[in-house]
Amino acid sequence: MANSTAIPESYSSLPVKDILISHVPETCLSPTVVLLQLNRPKKLNAVTAQMIEELVTAYHYFELDDRVKAIVVTGVGKGFCVGADLGVGFSGLLENLKGGPPAINAYRDGGGRVALAIHNCPTIRVVSANSKIGFAFSRRGLVMEACSSYFLPRLLGLSRALHLVTTGGTYAASDPLLAQLFSEVLPTPEETVSRAIEIANEIAAHTSTVSTAVMHDLMCRGPSTPEEAHLLESRIFLTTLLSRDSKEGMASFLEKRNPRFTGTMRKDAPQGWPWWQTTDTTSHIGENKTKL
Amino acid sequence: MANSTAIPESYSSLPVKDILISHVPETCLSPTVVLLQLNRPKKLNAVTAQMIEELVTAYHYFELDDRVKAIVVTGVGKGFCVGADLGVGFSGLLENLKGGPPAINAYRDGGGRVALAIHNCPTIRVVSANSKIGFAFSRRGLVMEACSSYFLPRLLGLSRALHLVTTGGTYAASDPLLAQLFSEVLPTPEETVSRAIEIANEIAAHTSTVSTAVMHDLMCRGPSTPEEAHLLESRIFLTTLLSRDSKEGMASFLEKRNPRFTGTMRKDAPQGWPWWQTTDTTSHIGENKTKL
Amino acid sequence: MANSTAIPESYSSLPVKDILISHVPETCLSPTVVLLQLNRPKKLNAVTAQMIEELVTAYHYFELDDRVKAIVVTGVGKGFCVGADLGVGFSGLLENLKGGPPAINAYRDGGGRVALAIHNCPTIRVVSANSKIGFAFSRRGLVMEACSSYFLPRLLGLSRALHLVTTGGTYAASDPLLAQLFSEVLPTPEETVSRAIEIANEIAAHTSTVSTAVMHDLMCRGPSTPEEAHLLESRIFLTTLLSRDSKEGMASFLEKRNPRFTGTMRKDAPQGWPWWQTTDTTSHIGENKTKL
Repeated sequence: MANSTAIPESYSSLPVKDILISHVPETCLSPTVVLLQLNRPKKLNAVTAQMIEELVTAYHYFELDDRVKAIVVTGVGKGFCVGADLGVGFSGLLENLKGGPPAINAYRDGGGRVALAIHNCPTIRVVSANSKIGFAFSRRGLVMEACSSYFLPRLLGLSRALHLVTTGGTYAASDPLLAQLFSEVLPTPEETVSRAIEIANEIAAHTSTVSTAVMHDLMCRGPSTPEEAHLLESRIFLTTLLSRDSKEGMASFLEKRNPRFTGTMRKDAPQGWPWWQTTDTTSHIGENKTKL
Repeated sequence: MANSTAIPESYSSLPVKDILISHVPETCLSPTVVLLQLNRPKKLNAVTAQMIEELVTAYHYFELDDRVKAIVVTGVGKGFCVGADLGVGFSGLLENLKGGPPAINAYRDGGGRVALAIHNCPTIRVVSANSKIGFAFSRRGLVMEACSSYFLPRLLGLSRALHLVTTGGTYAASDPLLAQLFSEVLPTPEETVSRAIEIANEIAAHTSTVSTAVMHDLMCRGPSTPEEAHLLESRIFLTTLLSRDSKEGMASFLEKRNPRFTGTMRKDAPQGWPWWQTTDTTSHIGENKTKL
Repeated sequence: MANSTAIPESYSSLPVKDILISHVPETCLSPTVVLLQLNRPKKLNAVTAQMIEELVTAYHYFELDDRVKAIVVTGVGKGFCVGADLGVGFSGLLENLKGGPPAINAYRDGGGRVALAIHNCPTIRVVSANSKIGFAFSRRGLVMEACSSYFLPRLLGLSRALHLVTTGGTYAASDPLLAQLFSEVLPTPEETVSRAIEIANEIAAHTSTVSTAVMHDLMCRGPSTPEEAHLLESRIFLTTLLSRDSKEGMASFLEKRNPRFTGTMRKDAPQGWPWWQTTDTTSHIGENKTKL
């Protein structure tokens, strides 16, 4: 995949190998809804370093591309993703250890890089009932990664998260243990992808990208007391009232028509955003202590 | 509503317009359980600035009134609340923006003011199955308010909270997405209000207001590690043992009778409460950075 | 129970009174899975100071004992635990109050001491459908303890936690309000214990103690932003790759056989663990303010 930051006109022409990107519907020239598929079906879409780079780059494009309103992520073939490709193995990673502390500090977990790239978009997960879900780390003598130690307890609750990683077992997607992780459980993989596209289209047609992005940050990067949340919301809400999308939202509501939101975070982020101290994970090298 | 802080003898005689307050049962002179109804049925109880002031004042009274043990909140007519009255509009709010940074910093979201007033009481939510619930902000180009960025992920989990605000859609109260938000889903609105009153009466008859208030704060204002929680609980538990309510609770238990708790937070808060740094949101003007 | 830190060869010979410890299966000499039972059946296993000391000491042994992979906790007789023994009463506790601030600061809630001892093991809870669960504090004029103000909202969500402690009522284990607290609800007490032993055996046979312990800490002691979590996970994951258990995990996976994990936290904790500032709750005397 090219290292350029020039947004591709059509994502279906991108030179990717381990993922596949297309527009929804396929004949659509403007990529409002993008379909991203993990594309190593013979390996049940096992993750490679190449796949990670392609995913990070793709999300980098999506973030810069004002046309993209929603992204549907799935896998080619019969599985979504079987995890890291243990055939390719961790030998590359072990090279980092030979370099001593500087190389160890410079190492960045690939799954985590993808998780952070995706994290900028609010995610909604739907699943097919016969899918199998597992967090096998404890059965391999490994520890959880891909920012899952952060997201899993927040998405599932600590009780479920501890159960899943402690047993390391594989569970049906319909298992109550996983209920909080998925918004809907569909009968078949086909219906699952259809439903995901339906939700993506609904989001693209009806909602403001700026609104959802800022609300995502209000919830994930918000203060730790209700009083401070009140002060932050008061400030952000008021400045949002001046935005293009707010005016269009109000107008379309009063005129009983669908909105045409054109705001983007690059141009229309509310004053005072970001309100938190951002962390550049790529240059955070040499720091030995994680601040809690 | 009068600006006085003198507690009214009877809440049913309060000069309110957009809300309605009565005692449960109506013939009860001492307001142990209070019924508070949003009262703009023709507008599906859309929120006005007037309604917000009345709610804040009412909760201010309830907090000072030792007689009030539980509050049931509902709406007159066929809906609970349709959100802000967009007919009245945000024009008043936009005035704040003309004042520049000082006026922007002085602005306080009305929904948040009500949320903070209510937050001092632990809340239990029951709902009628045919109710519709939605967080439409993203469909109006707005962002979430009323402290919902703080409470929604804590009450529902981050996964559900992100789904609801991202789609901006309207969901049936019985939708699994909302399961964590409500303690019970009742078949009809009438049964819902009856059940709410039943729960309120049970709380008023059997529990200590001081106990529930302090436990609410232990969970919402507690430390971020289990060890610090242990130290805090040890201190608060021990001093609570000296309280009037603790003695009555033990005595009534051993005598197998209902308790008659008389403790109030104003007179009987345990030593060391509040243990957190309180934030006065009304005077927090001019601060430009929200501390995280 | 002896005050020595020498690990007993067999737990079934320990001189305990209010608890009972045996090996699973009983004929097993090496205590891979330990069965710990509260043992005051005539008092529905009401907690005494003696029981608390025995539990804290037992968990201290388990932590030091490399043979112990999983612990099943249950009660002798028809109940698991009815709470503190109010017959024995709090008179001992009240002695602490007479000592003034120094004695008050020195007091440590016994339930909290047990909770912290258990907290070092990830816990999975299964329950029998006809069990009754309640948090009766508000009905006794008391406040929650045993670190429950910390764990309850994290395990159950704030909404459920507030409901349960506010009403102080008793609920069937199958009540949806408690759904998040238990991994499985079994039809009978016998099936519940069998299932717990089955899960314990599965964990003991298939998972690395080091992996689960570190993942537990990553989730419970992790940073408060996804970026910092990414940096922490990157470092811990990489050093874990050098561990004995990681090698055995990969080898057993590729050889399609069960793993034989031998790593222990005392010898094989990853470099950089613990990454948080530990709090010694036993010597934290004289501090008047809990840091939030």
